[in-house]
Amino acid sequence: MNNKKYIIGIDLGGTNLKLALLSVKYKIITKKILSTKKFKSSRELTHAIVSSVDELIRARRIKKTRIAGLGIGLPGPVDVRTGIVRFLPNIPGWRNIRLGEILTRRLKLPVFIDNDANLFTLAEYRLGAGKGLRNIVGITLGTGVGGGLIIEGRLYRGESFAAGEAGHIPILLLGRPCNCGGRGCLEAYVGNKRILSWAEKVFKKRIDLEELSNLAARGEHKAIRIWQSVGYLIGSALTGVINLLNPDALVIGGGVSNSGRVLFNSIRNFVKENAMVPQARQVVILKSKFKDDAGLIGAAILVRERNRI
Amino acid sequence: MNNKKYIIGIDLGGTNLKLALLSVKYKIITKKILSTKKFKSSRELTHAIVSSVDELIRARRIKKTRIAGLGIGLPGPVDVRTGIVRFLPNIPGWRNIRLGEILTRRLKLPVFIDNDANLFTLAEYRLGAGKGLRNIVGITLGTGVGGGLIIEGRLYRGESFAAGEAGHIPILLLGRPCNCGGRGCLEAYVGNKRILSWAEKVFKKRIDLEELSNLAARGEHKAIRIWQSVGYLIGSALTGVINLLNPDALVIGGGVSNSGRVLFNSIRNFVKENAMVPQARQVVILKSKFKDDAGLIGAAILVRERNRI
Repeated sequence: MNNKKYIIGIDLGGTNLKLALLSVKYKIITKKILSTKKFKSSRELTHAIVSSVDELIRARRIKKTRIAGLGIGLPGPVDVRTGIVRFLPNIPGWRNIRLGEILTRRLKLPVFIDNDANLFTLAEYRLGAGKGLRNIVGITLGTGVGGGLIIEGRLYRGESFAAGEAGHIPILLLGRPCNCGGRGCLEAYVGNKRILSWAEKVFKKRIDLEELSNLAARGEHKAIRIWQSVGYLIGSALTGVINLLNPDALVIGGGVSNSGRVLFNSIRNFVKENAMVPQARQVVILKSKFKDDAGLIGAAILVRERNRI
Repeated sequence: MNNKKYIIGIDLGGTNLKLALLSVKYKIITKKILSTKKFKSSRELTHAIVSSVDELIRARRIKKTRIAGLGIGLPGPVDVRTGIVRFLPNIPGWRNIRLGEILTRRLKLPVFIDNDANLFTLAEYRLGAGKGLRNIVGITLGTGVGGGLIIEGRLYRGESFAAGEAGHIPILLLGRPCNCGGRGCLEAYVGNKRILSWAEKVFKKRIDLEELSNLAARGEHKAIRIWQSVGYLIGSALTGVINLLNPDALVIGGGVSNSGRVLFNSIRNFVKENAMVPQARQVVILKSKFKDDAGLIGAAILVRERNRI
């Protein structure tokens, strides 16, 4: 008789809803990706999560008793203790949804909820680019800019579970209004829509992030200049983070981070030139190891660590 | 026979060298203040520390065996483990000085060294404005702008003991050059010399911080406007800190913080309008309880905590 245990990991983003069945060693066994935009309300989206999880389990003919639990990361502030999602800035219709309770009732599984950037950071710290280090800042560059903090080897969430919001560090006093209600935040300049509309202006046509990255890789000057500027903007916010937290590493992931060397070099150069000497010497700026899967792996780690299996 | 133990606390700033004899309950028994500027080299300053400590002890006729240790806070990055002072941006002549070793040898006392803003924060956390809270950011507004972090109830120093540098968060992309080598840092705008030269321009004469505060308290519009602007600049950097760390409190001290209500209200308003909702609801912005003595008390706490007395 096979008694191996499994974990369900879910990563809900502004663009995609990813679900996976993982082993307790965090190996992804099956993965399913849906478009977040298809679902018009939190009810529809929750329903899609429930039926997709049921499918994942049934397709592999696994008994529910062998699922240790379900972990889910969401792009916004969540109450880790109660499983309540406060709101999701980039997914309409979510406000004070008792997602933990709803999923537990429907799926009859232990459910653990956290912020997606926290789970990204947890995955990179335990098994990824930041493995073996003690103080790490994880940064996700995508629809929004998220962040997570590992302080002295532990995920630090803050008293209201809202810590890590590196995307909402003001980089320009009284600058551009941001979705969060503040002004001049990093996210207001380098969220992926901002980069795309910048590229559209420069190239006088619509262009996606992959094209923009390919152009830069092939040496196209205007594309290089855009990525360099994005790197400086990110570098400025991260200089503040590095001076404040004196971390061992920044691990950067998310769709925008796949744009290649120009962006990373530009961030690294800015930090080297601008951060204080002891901090600049200490920190390394790393690319995510798990890329698109970091959120799913982090969700599974959350289940094991909170469930103590 | 009296066997009561005592602690020596020292707070070295860009302007003053303060020394005190404290009880193990952190009551200041005697205090001595010297001008830092009098001493032209690290050797002269170290010598002044040694002879002042000797005087403090002799004046009270206390046996050296009853001094549990000496704690000292310095305005710059120090290696807490080895007692080496790396450099002091606002006091010339200090570079890689083995201050811990030198003072131990000369005074024959256990010596503990830390960053002054860390000790300020420790004092306010253990006994002052932040008592009972778990996540606190201490900010010192003076010659420079310093900071310290209490994370989950512990002083967090970072791997190279340089964490907490809230004064070196860039608030303006590619802004004014800062002493630290970066650009647009908070300190480059609100260090006390900057405020004074700003006031001199506005009032067309030299004016000190106390006068500028008194003018604002009496309703002088130009003085109020200066303190409001200083508050917005500080508020912008602190909004980033609050969004990133989701702290329970910011405790603000240092000479500039004695300027009265206009400054504090301006900081509080900026944060309320600009920080993210969960973080803004969580945080309180408090004035230092111990004011000028926080560094001395923090130095004494350091001795007890590191010495386990």
